[in-house]
Formats: sequence, structure tokens, C-alpha cells
Amino acid sequence: MKKNRICQLFGIKYPIIQGGMIWCSGWELASAVSNAGGLGLIGSGSMTPEVLQLHIQKAKKATNNPFGVNVPLIYSRIEETMEVIVKEKVKIVFTSAGNPKTWTDYLHKQGIKVVHVVANLKFALKSREAGVDAVVAEGFEAGGHNGREETTTMVLIPLIRDKIDIPLIAAGGISSGRSMLASIILGADGVQIGSRFAACAESSSHRNFKKKITELGDGDTQLALRKLIPVRLIKNNFFEHIASRESAGASVTELVGILGKGRAKKGMFEGDVVEGELEIGQVSANINEILTAKEIIDSIIKEYSETLNRLSELQ
Amino acid sequence: MKKNRICQLFGIKYPIIQGGMIWCSGWELASAVSNAGGLGLIGSGSMTPEVLQLHIQKAKKATNNPFGVNVPLIYSRIEETMEVIVKEKVKIVFTSAGNPKTWTDYLHKQGIKVVHVVANLKFALKSREAGVDAVVAEGFEAGGHNGREETTTMVLIPLIRDKIDIPLIAAGGISSGRSMLASIILGADGVQIGSRFAACAESSSHRNFKKKITELGDGDTQLALRKLIPVRLIKNNFFEHIASRESAGASVTELVGILGKGRAKKGMFEGDVVEGELEIGQVSANINEILTAKEIIDSIIKEYSETLNRLSELQ
Repeated sequence: MKKNRICQLFGIKYPIIQGGMIWCSGWELASAVSNAGGLGLIGSGSMTPEVLQLHIQKAKKATNNPFGVNVPLIYSRIEETMEVIVKEKVKIVFTSAGNPKTWTDYLHKQGIKVVHVVANLKFALKSREAGVDAVVAEGFEAGGHNGREETTTMVLIPLIRDKIDIPLIAAGGISSGRSMLASIILGADGVQIGSRFAACAESSSHRNFKKKITELGDGDTQLALRKLIPVRLIKNNFFEHIASRESAGASVTELVGILGKGRAKKGMFEGDVVEGELEIGQVSANINEILTAKEIIDSIIKEYSETLNRLSELQ
Repeated sequence: MKKNRICQLFGIKYPIIQGGMIWCSGWELASAVSNAGGLGLIGSGSMTPEVLQLHIQKAKKATNNPFGVNVPLIYSRIEETMEVIVKEKVKIVFTSAGNPKTWTDYLHKQGIKVVHVVANLKFALKSREAGVDAVVAEGFEAGGHNGREETTTMVLIPLIRDKIDIPLIAAGGISSGRSMLASIILGADGVQIGSRFAACAESSSHRNFKKKITELGDGDTQLALRKLIPVRLIKNNFFEHIASRESAGASVTELVGILGKGRAKKGMFEGDVVEGELEIGQVSANINEILTAKEIIDSIIKEYSETLNRLSELQ
């Protein structure tokens, strides 16, 4: 895959990005993915700038391969986060949940490659205008925070590919070599995989959460909190409480109150899978075991190659 | 594609099924699709048994190729509908919105091939148990009535393929050769395409509706009426009224009242695109012109073959 644009852009072996995920993707997961030939991302969304700095320092010791940091732009201490990233000489930043124009020029001047995460065509075009190096297009099936348009990966990737020519990374619903190849056929140059790495041995999330992911079937996650920021959650007690209040027409204020503080940490990091907020993608239905990052990447590449070879039968 | 299981099952040239759609797929569309090498379906959902009989008779005159009828099993005059199908010697029936066990044996005894439409793994397994000849698995992005699990095509197809071995048809988000090939890589044997044929020259829907489909972007459709039967609609005045009442916690009774009678006919058949109920898939964002059924199928097959040939570069 030496000619692949995503591999060339980041200097990696396989065009597989591990999505930055709160409470899952610290230095241990990111460096394990990078060591296995993908691009690991430290998810800064659940970290103070001080904690992020420690994770970056540990990742640099744990891998000689490229890795990056994912930064949700809505974070209140965003300036300090960016300072840490520059100071620690991180070379790749994925920005999300904000305007791609705000930070792209600044990061480029520091010699940092910038990728912006979008969920619709409008922001893909804005990202190109902002001069980003690549775009992640994330479908409705993805876990965690999600676009308001609810457009799925199958529809979103061809739509964006037909309008922009810069490197495009598909996200949402991807966990295997087959779904990676399908994404590339739809027009992507590479894939970002979240859920499968959330359940990875090196994920920093609680073992209860990882086990829960492997037990889910189709229909066991659902998009909630559309009146705040839409988020895909596992249907546990906490979700059902939100869903019943939403069905009854709950206001923004009421929903903010129910959500409270620290719900995601309680669920994903501390392991309360009943009352915590558990963010995961629909593709959890296709995830049945907890493997290491290397085992996951190797199995994806193996299936990808086998599927590609079998296609000659279709010609 | 002679070895393709869907082509063999139905005796057709290409594994492309035209979805049965209310107010769109009468005899004219179904026979045009069948004449072009796909499988046309008459959508009986908006027809009385008497009207259906006329459409079947006209389709038989308009094509010598196989065609079928789609039957939503919740329809109140279902026995009479099935009588007409048997009497007119229709050879292929797609059933949806009901239990696959209810009619499969009866139809098989009449020498009719039976396909059931599902939106989750549970009903795919039930369909196999019922002895159907194939399953259509339809993702969240599809237009019209939709599953409660909201599982997208990218997740649903591999999930079902890994559990059942009978012929599998992917639906939802598919309109092109690329998305057809992606579906086959995910594990499908063929595809069912709705939206693109709804906007087809031979579709019986109103020209206002067809024009509207070609103008839509991403985010211009949304799933509504989750408290009744979930349905994907174009966001027009009628939709916005429903959405605002749903957001305020409207009851089932209130929603039934807003929906009223004949709303879909008003929109899709009579052309009131402001106050009518307009059912279409997310993939409408990728549909920009009104073509004939033959032009659509030829362009899909051309792109499918070109994409398949280009894949050798990836090996």
C-alpha cells in the first residue's frame, strides 16, 4: 500500500487510523496501533492539558512510528491543549467538533499535519477551504458524538468523494477487512476505526465496558440527546432514562440535568455499565472478542487482502 | 454474472432489484426494469387488489422477463391480494412488514419464489427458518418504512452474512456501481435499489416529487414517527410539523391525527411537495438527474465493472 495517499501523508504502513476516543485511547492504545503499522491517536477529549502532556511523552517512548492527537475544538482549555501539542512536537492533529478554519493555519505553521472530522458535505468543503491535509467523514453508525444530518457511511463517502479530491478517511461502521475494502470502493483512501479499538486489550477503558461491547447485538445502541449534541450510546439504564424523558418532550435544561457531570467516566473508565454513559458504534454488533491492537490490525489486513483476491472471481 | 445466486434464483441478467415503492412502482416501472435486465417489482402497498390485478396484467404484456410483486403483510386486504397474485401466476413475491412464516409455505406451494425484507438479524434468522428463497436486508438510510434498530447497511450486511448462508440482497444507500460493489464486498449477493428508481422516468410518481428528489442534499431526509412505524421522509412543511410535535412529546394518538389519511398519495402521486408525505432514502443526496430505467441500470453496471477492474491496482 505504498502508493496509498493516507500512508504517504502520515508515513504509515496501513491506511488504518485508530479513532481518538475519550477514556479509551491514551498513550498505550495509540502507541500499540502505531507500532502495528496503523496511526494511533491519543484522544485528548477526556484529558486536561497536563494529563495530555504525560500521555504524549509516554507515547513517544513507546513507539518510534508516527502517532497523533485528536482534539475536540469545543474543549474549554483548547489554547493550552494546542500549546502542549506544539511543545511536545506532535506531528499530526485530528480536529473535530468545531470550525476547521480556527486552528489549521496555526498548526500548519508549526509543521503539523491537520485532519478535520466532519459528518456532512458542507463541513467537508469548509475543511478543504481551510487547507486541511485530509478529512475524516463519519457516518451515523459511529459511536460517541455524531452529526445532526444522520447520514450513513454508505451515503456520505461517495457524496464527499465526488466533490473534493483531498485524502478522505471513512469512519462509522468499519471494523473488518471487508468493511475497509467497501469504504475504499465507496471513495475513501483509508479508514478510521473506533469501536473495535475501544474493546482492544490496550484500550484504557474499564474491562466491564470492553466486555459489554463484545456482547452487543444490532439495535443495542441508539442515538440520543439530539436536543444537546447527538451521541450514540449503549441502551443501558442510563440511556433508557434519557430516552423516556426525550419521548415525553424533555427540555434542554432537563436533559443537561440528567446528563450531569462525569457520566462517561463513570461508565467507560470506572466500569458502571448500568448507570454510566457508554459511547460506542453500531459496529459493536460485529465485535465479539477482545484482541490486542496488533491482532486487530493484522486480521483486518489479512481479510482485506483475501477479499481483494476473491474479487477476481466477480470479473 | 451468470454464476451470481440472485441472477440464478430469479432468472435475470443483473443482480439488481427495483424496490417496491408506493405511488412509484406500477407496471410501467417494474416492466422497464425487468426489460433492462434487473428485477422489477410492482409495489402493491398503495393498490387495492383490483388495481394490482390490472398492473400485473399490464406488466405481463410489457415484458417477457421475470418480474415480481412486493406485498406489505400488514395490509388489511392481504388475502385478496395474495389471491390475485396466484390467479395471475406471478412467480416472485417480496413480503415485508410482517412475519415471514405467515405466507411463505402457501406461496411456495403455488410455485412462487418468496423473499422477505428485514431490518435486523432476528428477522433474517426467522426468514431463513420460514424457508424463504432470499432475504433483503435494509439499512437505516433507506426511504419509507424503516426498522426500529436503525442499523445501517454497512453494519447490517456483514452481521447477517456471517449468520445465514441463503441469498442476501442489500438495500439502503445504494444507487451506483460503487455502492453495489461495496454491498457485495460486505457480503450481499445482490442489491435492491429504491430511491433512484423513484426518480426514474417510468416511475408513476408525480414529476414534482421526482424533481424534488434530484434537488436534495445530505441531511434533507430524516426518520420520523418512531412512536408509530418509523418512516424516512423529506424535510418539508409536513415533516417539520410532525418533528416539532414529536420534539414536544406528542402522543401516538396526536401523531395518528397529524398523519391523517392519504398524505403519501398527496405528496408522491399528486405532487404536493410542501404538505404531502414524501418517502425517500438518504441516497437521494447522490441522485441528480431523472433517467430511464435502462439508463440507470446500464450506468450502474458500467460503473460496477470499471470499479472492479480498477481494484487490480490495489492488489
